[in-house]
Amino acid sequence: MSASKNKVTAAIVIIGDEVLSGRTRDENLAFMSKRCTEIGIRLQEARVVADIESAIIEAINELRARNDYVFTTGGIGPTHDDITADSIGAAFGLPVGYHPEAKPLLEKYLGDRVNEARMRMARTPEGAELIPNSISIAPGFIVDNVHVMAGVPAVCRVMFEWLVDNKLRTGDKMISRTISAHVPEGEIANGLAELAAKYDDVDIGSYPFYREGKFGAALVVRGTVATQVTEIGDAIEDLVRSLGQEPLDFDPAATDPGNH
Amino acid sequence: MSASKNKVTAAIVIIGDEVLSGRTRDENLAFMSKRCTEIGIRLQEARVVADIESAIIEAINELRARNDYVFTTGGIGPTHDDITADSIGAAFGLPVGYHPEAKPLLEKYLGDRVNEARMRMARTPEGAELIPNSISIAPGFIVDNVHVMAGVPAVCRVMFEWLVDNKLRTGDKMISRTISAHVPEGEIANGLAELAAKYDDVDIGSYPFYREGKFGAALVVRGTVATQVTEIGDAIEDLVRSLGQEPLDFDPAATDPGNH
Repeated sequence: MSASKNKVTAAIVIIGDEVLSGRTRDENLAFMSKRCTEIGIRLQEARVVADIESAIIEAINELRARNDYVFTTGGIGPTHDDITADSIGAAFGLPVGYHPEAKPLLEKYLGDRVNEARMRMARTPEGAELIPNSISIAPGFIVDNVHVMAGVPAVCRVMFEWLVDNKLRTGDKMISRTISAHVPEGEIANGLAELAAKYDDVDIGSYPFYREGKFGAALVVRGTVATQVTEIGDAIEDLVRSLGQEPLDFDPAATDPGNH
Repeated sequence: MSASKNKVTAAIVIIGDEVLSGRTRDENLAFMSKRCTEIGIRLQEARVVADIESAIIEAINELRARNDYVFTTGGIGPTHDDITADSIGAAFGLPVGYHPEAKPLLEKYLGDRVNEARMRMARTPEGAELIPNSISIAPGFIVDNVHVMAGVPAVCRVMFEWLVDNKLRTGDKMISRTISAHVPEGEIANGLAELAAKYDDVDIGSYPFYREGKFGAALVVRGTVATQVTEIGDAIEDLVRSLGQEPLDFDPAATDPGNH
């Protein structure tokens, strides 16, 4: 019944007007949130902010103060609207200039394609550590607990996996068990509330779905102690059966992420 | 060359542990951000917060103070983890109780299925105005400029469309034009920066994509004056051609949202 001993927290900042305008559908939050859970990092909050320096600074400074890690994506390319490096520098009060390793790395890779715009991708706040990019070379970087990655999903992924393999301290993994059923939330709510009140260290979530004209709920138990998760999961299955339903053998949210 | 005369702003708060854990992929941000753009509302920021009252209060109070509208999704069902109504009440310092219209509405709809858990869905902060729900009756609500909707995407949509038709003041629409090309961002960056510096009221964004092993960029012009958007779009097409490329006849981000 002991609480998690080793909790590691994170927040995500997605930087980009194109996501706020609805033009581009962000893929990086879904990817990173899933990976964080898999490796034992608790994502506490995510924000999507515009390509505006003050907005980036505010999000970074609020979130880095209260999380072990902050992960950002977007705004590290060569064009005028790529302002992440300067904004992170401003958030930390650090000067921004060519990074001593990134500069020769990019110069070598670019060869005669070197120009001032492309070399903007070698700029980082002073003292930053690089995050390698095996796809297009231009690196991400780390300042203190803030990890700055590319917005292009394929590049974001290789950078994030490099962090997982090389940098991130991970905590106790959340184990989860999902029981889905065509049981109305309103009927199972009392039983769930009683279980939730009984177990402090375990979260019980109820996520309604609407599928082929029928409502149901995915009931999710999450905790760090496997025996507890199993025990509560069994109790929820009993609750479902006491309401005359059988647990479904699929998870509607997992198979149909939008629950349409 | 005049700036937008009628700017209406909004922020979105997605409430739900299940999105942060990566279990459920949020659909509501993509939907609402697109619709906001279509109807002339500028989405300035979006947040995903946990099912924790203090987290919800913080997000609501920060965002309602600096946007014309706040839209929330999630946490208005009948189960113990549905704490949105109480959290919004706390954010505004308002008592929360049965809404005088929602209570009889739900009682009538539920008939002999009425129970205390289900009647939680009739609770709102005092003085709230209801947002009807044609799918499952349980309403959303409005307190001041905060619009509280369901997390189930199908329900969120009918609530949002009702707001569009009945409540929301909309501003000047952003007109956009996208020119996509297999032109490296690093080569077109200077030309774009010159154009961006020339036109104050128009945003020029460059969004790299990576597709079938080739990088390219979607160059997006956004503004409220159609003639300007056309003029700058033409200038960008000329830039692309001056680099020996032809604009593509598809938008990689629109056809393949993830840019994989």
